[in-house]
Parts: sequence; C-alpha cells; structure tokens
Amino acid sequence: MSLQAYQQDLPQTAANHVALSPLSFIERAANVYPTRPAVIHGAIRYNWAEAYTRSRRLASALVKAGIARGDTVAVMLPNIPAMFDCHFGVPMSGAVLNTLNTRLDPEAIAFMLRHGEAKVLITDREFSFTIAPALAMLDTPPLVIDVDDPEYAGPGERLGSIEYEAFIAGGDPGYDWQLPADEWDAIALNYTSGTTGNPKGVVYHHRGAYLNAVCNIMEWGMPRHATYLWTLPMFHCNGWCFPWTMAANVGTNVCLRRVDPRLIFELIKQHQVSHYCGAPIVHNMLINAPDDCKQGIEHQVNCLVAGAAPPSAVIEGMEKLGFNITHVYGLTETYGPAAVCAKQDEWADMDIGGRTERNGRQGVRYTMQQGMTVMDPVTMNEVPHDGETMGEIMFRGNLVMKGYLKNPAATRESLAGGWFHTGDLAVIQPDGYVKIKDRSKDIIISGGENISSLEVEDVLCRFPGVITAAVVALPDPKWGEVPCAFIELKEGVAGDEAAVIEHCRAHLARFKVPKRIVFGAIPKTSTGKIQKFLLRQQTNAASAIE
Amino acid sequence: MSLQAYQQDLPQTAANHVALSPLSFIERAANVYPTRPAVIHGAIRYNWAEAYTRSRRLASALVKAGIARGDTVAVMLPNIPAMFDCHFGVPMSGAVLNTLNTRLDPEAIAFMLRHGEAKVLITDREFSFTIAPALAMLDTPPLVIDVDDPEYAGPGERLGSIEYEAFIAGGDPGYDWQLPADEWDAIALNYTSGTTGNPKGVVYHHRGAYLNAVCNIMEWGMPRHATYLWTLPMFHCNGWCFPWTMAANVGTNVCLRRVDPRLIFELIKQHQVSHYCGAPIVHNMLINAPDDCKQGIEHQVNCLVAGAAPPSAVIEGMEKLGFNITHVYGLTETYGPAAVCAKQDEWADMDIGGRTERNGRQGVRYTMQQGMTVMDPVTMNEVPHDGETMGEIMFRGNLVMKGYLKNPAATRESLAGGWFHTGDLAVIQPDGYVKIKDRSKDIIISGGENISSLEVEDVLCRFPGVITAAVVALPDPKWGEVPCAFIELKEGVAGDEAAVIEHCRAHLARFKVPKRIVFGAIPKTSTGKIQKFLLRQQTNAASAIE
Repeated sequence: MSLQAYQQDLPQTAANHVALSPLSFIERAANVYPTRPAVIHGAIRYNWAEAYTRSRRLASALVKAGIARGDTVAVMLPNIPAMFDCHFGVPMSGAVLNTLNTRLDPEAIAFMLRHGEAKVLITDREFSFTIAPALAMLDTPPLVIDVDDPEYAGPGERLGSIEYEAFIAGGDPGYDWQLPADEWDAIALNYTSGTTGNPKGVVYHHRGAYLNAVCNIMEWGMPRHATYLWTLPMFHCNGWCFPWTMAANVGTNVCLRRVDPRLIFELIKQHQVSHYCGAPIVHNMLINAPDDCKQGIEHQVNCLVAGAAPPSAVIEGMEKLGFNITHVYGLTETYGPAAVCAKQDEWADMDIGGRTERNGRQGVRYTMQQGMTVMDPVTMNEVPHDGETMGEIMFRGNLVMKGYLKNPAATRESLAGGWFHTGDLAVIQPDGYVKIKDRSKDIIISGGENISSLEVEDVLCRFPGVITAAVVALPDPKWGEVPCAFIELKEGVAGDEAAVIEHCRAHLARFKVPKRIVFGAIPKTSTGKIQKFLLRQQTNAASAIE
Repeated sequence: MSLQAYQQDLPQTAANHVALSPLSFIERAANVYPTRPAVIHGAIRYNWAEAYTRSRRLASALVKAGIARGDTVAVMLPNIPAMFDCHFGVPMSGAVLNTLNTRLDPEAIAFMLRHGEAKVLITDREFSFTIAPALAMLDTPPLVIDVDDPEYAGPGERLGSIEYEAFIAGGDPGYDWQLPADEWDAIALNYTSGTTGNPKGVVYHHRGAYLNAVCNIMEWGMPRHATYLWTLPMFHCNGWCFPWTMAANVGTNVCLRRVDPRLIFELIKQHQVSHYCGAPIVHNMLINAPDDCKQGIEHQVNCLVAGAAPPSAVIEGMEKLGFNITHVYGLTETYGPAAVCAKQDEWADMDIGGRTERNGRQGVRYTMQQGMTVMDPVTMNEVPHDGETMGEIMFRGNLVMKGYLKNPAATRESLAGGWFHTGDLAVIQPDGYVKIKDRSKDIIISGGENISSLEVEDVLCRFPGVITAAVVALPDPKWGEVPCAFIELKEGVAGDEAAVIEHCRAHLARFKVPKRIVFGAIPKTSTGKIQKFLLRQQTNAASAIE
C-alpha cells in the first residue's frame, strides 16, 4: 500500500469534521435533558433548556448591539447565573469572553479594558466602586450592562444604560449561533498577574476549552449529573473550564456570590452537592467552621484543591470531614489544572503524614495534556527522577494557551523550545510525580490569588525615600502566603511602616498590600541583582510550599 | 478590537498543539500507573508498564520487518492480549490496523487482504482453516505471524514463519514511536458487509478514535479503573474503541476467546467485572444461563447493548439479573456507538413495558458526535418529531469515518450533503429520541453480525434453476434475526431446500446461510423491482426491530 491510499479522496467534509467547541455541550444538554436543573442561585432555578435559551438571547442581544466576531466582551461578575450565561452566550456571538478578577483595583481593570479593547462590559452592581473609577480612566469606554442580582442587597449602583435581564430579553431565544469555523479560534481572554507590572492577556482556543472541560470529568471520575458548587471564581481561568464541564456532564451548577462557610455547608446539604473546587483557603475555612455547620452530610463530597500545595492540615482536615480531596496543578496559561496528583491505591494504607506528602504534590499530566516534566530551562534536558535536582516545570499539549494577546515576544519566550515554561521550580520524584520547590517568577499566592512581587515592588519604589524594595512570600496560616516587603531607604530616612502601607493601599488591591515590612539593607549579588533566596530564607517561604 | 488581534502572532506550536491520538493514553497509563493490571487472560497477567512495552516491541518489530507509515497490518484474532497489543503497536509503527472478522469465509478474507494490501497478517492458530485457503487465493501473500495462544488447546496449525511472542521479543522495548503528524491520519481499517457484494473499507482517523474512546467514558459515566470484560469482539469497529477507552480509563481488560455464559459469569465474579458490551444475543445467553452460574454477584455490573433494538426480554432479563443495561447505536462508519438511549430519571418509575419501550430506542447523539437526526434523504429536511414520519438516520461530526478506502464514489455518496447516511429508516419521537423502523440497506443483523442480503441473493442466484432470489430478515429468539430466502424457480423445476442450503454452505460463512427457504412467486413492482416490504410482512421482520 502506498501511504497515498489512506490520504487520497478522504478529505475533511461537513459530515466528518467539525470544530471542537464547548458550546456544543450546552446545545446537547438542552436538547436531551431540557428539564434537568442547570443553574440554582438562591431562589432562582434554570433548567438546561432555559440556560441554553438565556445564552442564545445573550448572543443575539450582543450581535444586535454591534458585537462581531473577534470582539472582546468583558465581565466583572461573581458566580451568578449571568456569569454562567456569559461562558456560552459571549462566544456564541463570535466574541471573546474576558472575565475580570473582581478583587482587582480600578487601575488594573482599566488596563485590561484598554488592552483587551472590550466593546461591552457586563458588571455586577457590587463592583461599581471599582468599575466606576476604572471607566473614568478610559478614553473610549465600552457599552456597560449592569447586573442587578435579586440575591444581592448590598451597596453599589448601576453604571450603564441597561440592566442585564432587560438586555437579554431583547435577544432572540432561537438565535442561530454558529460554531467557530476553526477550533483554534479564541474563546476567552484571561489576564494573569504575570511577572511584570502589566498583566498579560492569556488567549484560550475552543479546542483547549473543549478538551479541558472533558478532562475534568475524566480525571475526577465524575458521574453524569453531578451537582457542582461554585466556590471557585469563574473569573479564574474560566473556573478551570467547569462551566463547560458541567454542560458536558449535564449536571447542576449551584451559584455562590461569596465564600461563606456556613452557607457552603447549607448548600451542600440542601442540594446534595457532590463536587466543588477551591484554593486551600476555601477548604481551610470549611475545616475551621463551627461544628454545628458540618452536621448532617450523609453523601460523598469530592473536592479539588489547587494553588499553593495544600498544607497537611487541609488534607487531614478534609479527611476528617469525610470529603474526598484531590490536588491539581496548573496556571492560567494551561486553562487551570493541567496536572493532577493522581492517587495510587497503596497511599490509602499510609499514615496521615505519608498520605499528605503523597497527595500534596503537583503530580502528573492531565490525560489530555500531552506532556508535563521538569527541565533545565537552558539545556531543555529533563532532570533526573531523584527528588533532588531542581528544574522548571514545563507543559506541552492541547491544554496550553494560544499565547499572550498582542505580546508576541512574551508568547515566543513562554513557548520556547516546544514547551510552555511555567516559571515554577520543582523536582521529579522517583515515582515520576512532580513536586514544586520554589517559584522562579516571583509570584506570591495569597488566598488563591496570584500577586506579582514586581508589581508591589514597583509601588513601593514610588514611596519617597525608598532605594530598593523586594517582596517575597511570607507563610500565613490563613491565606497560605502573604506579601512581605523588604525596603532599603536612603541614608538618614527613617522607616514608617504605617505610611508605607497607606501608600500601598492607595495604589494596590487590598490583597496585594504587604502584611509585613522589614526595613534594612537588601542582599545583592556583585552585579547588583537582589538575592531573593536569602530573603525567602528569612521569611521561611519554602515552608509554605513544603 | 480587530479580529486580527486574536489570530495574529498566536500560531500553533509544538508547545500548544499536538495531534489527538489514543496512543497517548497508553503512554500515560504506563507512566502513572505502571503496576496496575492492564490485561488478564486466563493465567496471564500484564500490568500497564508491560502492556506498553509489548506494544512498543510490536511497533519496533514491525518496522524492522519493513512496515512503513501508511502500510496495512491485518489481524485475525480473538479477544486476547495480542489483539489488545495490536491496537497500540500497529499504529505506533505508523501502520493502519485492519481487524478481520474471524467469522468470515476465506473468499471474504482474501478480498480484504487484497483490497487493503496488507503487508503483514497476524493470525491465531484457531483460524488457520479460514486463513490457509484465503492465503492460497492471493498472488502476493503478506508476511504471516502466528499467534499460538497458550490458553487455546483446540485444532489449527501455524501458517507462518514466526510466532507472535518470538516476533515481538525481537522488537525494542524502548522503541521511540511518534504520534502522527496529523490527527486526520488513518489509524484503522474496518471492512463493513455493506450493501453490495464487495465489502467497503471504512477508514478511521486518530482524531475520531481518540474522541470516541473518551466519549465512551462520558456516556457510560465510567469511574476510573473500571474492569472491562471483552464479550464484544475487538474486530467489530475496534471493539467500539474500547481498547483505547480502557487505556484512557487505566482500567483492566479481561480477555475472552469465546462467548461462553458460564465462563462469563465466572470471570465477572472472579475479577469483579464492572463493564461489558455486546449484541443482544450475548445478553440473552447470560439471561438464559443456568441459575447456578448467576449466584454470588454482589457488585454492580454495567452493560451496553447494540445491534438490533434489544427485545424487551433482554432489558427485562438484565434488570432481573441486577445488571444496568444501556442501549447504544452506531455503525462501522461511526466508530461503533455514536448514539445512546440516554436514560431519563422518570423512566425508572415506569412499568417494565414503558421502560423497555423507552430504553430500547436508538436515542440521541453521543456528546462528542455533533449531530444525529432523521431526514428525508432527498430534500435533506429533518422529519417532524411526531414518531410517525419516516426518514433516514443521519450523523455528522468527529465520530464519522474519513471515508471508504479506494472508493471515492461510495465515500461521496455516503457523506453527501454534509451528513453520513446510515441507511437506517427511523422516526423522531416527540422527546427527540430516534427510533429505527426499518433498514433501507437490506442488512440482516444475526448474532451481532451484519449480513448483506444482496450477497446471499447473489449466491442463491447461482444455483441451477433459480430465476429470482430475495433475502430478508426473519425474527429469531436466539440470533435476533436470521436470513430467510424467497426463491422463484424456472417453470417445471422443483424446489430442493436441502440442496440450496448445501450450495450456500459451500459459498458463504455459516452465519450467512438462510435458515428458512420459501419457494414461490416473488412480488414485484410494475418495473420489476422486488417488493421486499411484502416479504418482510410475511416474515414479520418488523417485530425484530420493534
């Protein structure tokens, strides 16, 4: 046989090839299980037929408002039905969904709206205190659509000309949306705090969103029709792709505006929640909640934890609660989790120390990610599986972003040598599992949020009298890590901690403000490079990772 | 934002794009779970590390034997470890796997070896009685590798120059196989009995095999590490892609040379089998097995049934056994099942008649198939969802073949209008579920095997004295359907049933031989076309479908 025979006259056609897109999942869910519950939010209920209709209305209304293929629609929303709609309706309109981190400050939001060139912004009333000043910074503000959630009674005002429900009511419920012609087309834009002052816009393609949505089901062994509680923000890597996962799974999304342990336990019991995800801090809050909250859960609850490696207290505490916890690892650039600390049967027989050590590692590649390893970033050789030789964690495969928006240099650098460079330093243990030892990219993870130490240092250096500032992670029992600032002052200037913190509060989101300030000389190399590892030793930062 | 921004400087690279191929699954299974059981066959055990090594050895040995990318490797094997190896090792070598139906006659096998231009044939000793004469019909026979299975003590001889275990022992256990450069590359070749005398070679691509392997897990809600019993032949649509599914699932394959109810129950108990698939006849055999076999199963067993719609006795019988049965539907052209009769909660409360009627339909598209509908094949309009208007079942999406090998006319015809034409006539019920009413392609499904009525008619017409022959399905409690022949003889010739059957046995595989012969005038239209629907009314064939 010539190779020819299997390639000749066997072309891709409309019958045998279609773009992979997670939008296909909601269409099937609505057609096959129209009356199954899709979204629960307080007293609000949408079944899958309704959820699909809302998405189509949104897509149609956006197109009527002038949105075209390749435009950006930004959203500043908590985990509410509108946010779920947007994960389908925005890409159905041909636009790219840009979920904004609701904890950011107006400057960061303004940067993202400007850089992403958002034409529409859908924003919840609660965040008007951030959004109003952000909009004021823009020369060409987007069309603003307000969400006035009936489940939210707190402060905040409408900023736009139309409320979300009225907006989608003007859309066609039978809108004939189209799949992307190419599965490489963008579906979402997620800004990462990155390592430089300016966030980078991570672009997701439909193919990766589709595959990671499915892979979540496989890795977790999720049965169909799971009930998923939205403890993880949907603005983080599109909720690790779980809006799309739940459509493929035809499960139920239980919304949650804010992480409140008592409410979480109530919802777990009320709706028989079977699955949820979160940073270690979320699990910690549940562990430390009053005992009376925890009574009465009779069913198996499964949870994923990611972020900093979970401290043993989290794994142990979850076990005591009777929850089945799995550790996953990934970055914004990998659609959220692209690695899992896949459990081995024999771990179950170990003592808690052994189980925690095994289960707390970054682990192995997701089944649908092609490769994950640790390499010397210069030689691109894999490190030996000895648990000692450090290198950088690298990923490659279909669960890696298209690249950074309008930033070809950063894209090339991050994907150099055929691997995505995570910036996380790790070892490979003898069983092939990856374990993080340090981060090369000066990221501090606090309460599940990434903080760029460079961004904080930049603000500190603008304070009068500061010569050098270096920010590293300080282990914290509640937040995992918090920023700790080392500041070198001009001769004769006295350190004023309260004033420095006030300055930071004026220029940074609250969670980025250093929780400790240390004044004094900062150790540097002969070429003037700050020796952060010495500072980390001082703060014992490694213990946050161990 | 111009559309440009999301497309510019964001190319596919080795870091963020890789061909979808089910070969990736076994590499991960071996690396992450090396010691978990992969394959069980009688006293033989292979873990995932060993299964992967065997596949790499096979690939390496094939390359050493001269196999190159795009060559065909044919196999005539029961469900044994070598057959499992071939699903990975053959495509790892760059070749295309052609699994031969072990029930066929030498003529059909010779046709396939010739048409597929197989360079290597791996064949089990048991089938030497078919293979020896088939090879004798070829001008350029392939390299023959014999499998001499230690679990097989029956008759049959070696035909080739080397035994399979010796052959792979010569391969490199660390062979550095490569993924296909393009996921559209062929992975398998499966001949279908089709509607004409000559079988058609259905070509599968890596993309579809990958997606269907994963979709089996999703549709069935399979937990990780399932234990799968090989009641379904791997030569049927590559066992509905389950060799690849089990690698993705990192489960255990329990091999089975032949369908023997007592042995099946023993294996279910011994290995805690959780999942198996089969035609209705397989399930029927289990239902009708002696009661003593059935004792002692304490765990949940899940089964898929496909083929003719399962008679109510099968669904009822399975329920009584305590097995959870799901009905799937598909064709060779759709990688096996590409539709599922997805269960709705409310069916559980119906009586057995209602449950059987609901669960026995062809159902709805697999989540990873893009579309399934019933259309008027001329206008290509969907029929109304009224349960009455007949049309042809159509599929489209990534679970449709590349096309037919070296048969562009048939490929074009079958994929015309952007849909794959199944040839099955059906209605859409008000809930959107598809239900087959008849087959337009003159296929008889007997014991899970497709029989082309045209092929049988062709043989009958060669019998002296026959003017016209028409073969239709006759309902059969054991086989589902069997062929029934209507024969019109020349004037003055007397019908001799025994002689006709003897003639058929000489020219057809045993399962294709008509089980009943009816002599007499055959009803025709004014233009001379045989009115098969009248003959089907006589045999009450519709009841096999209802």
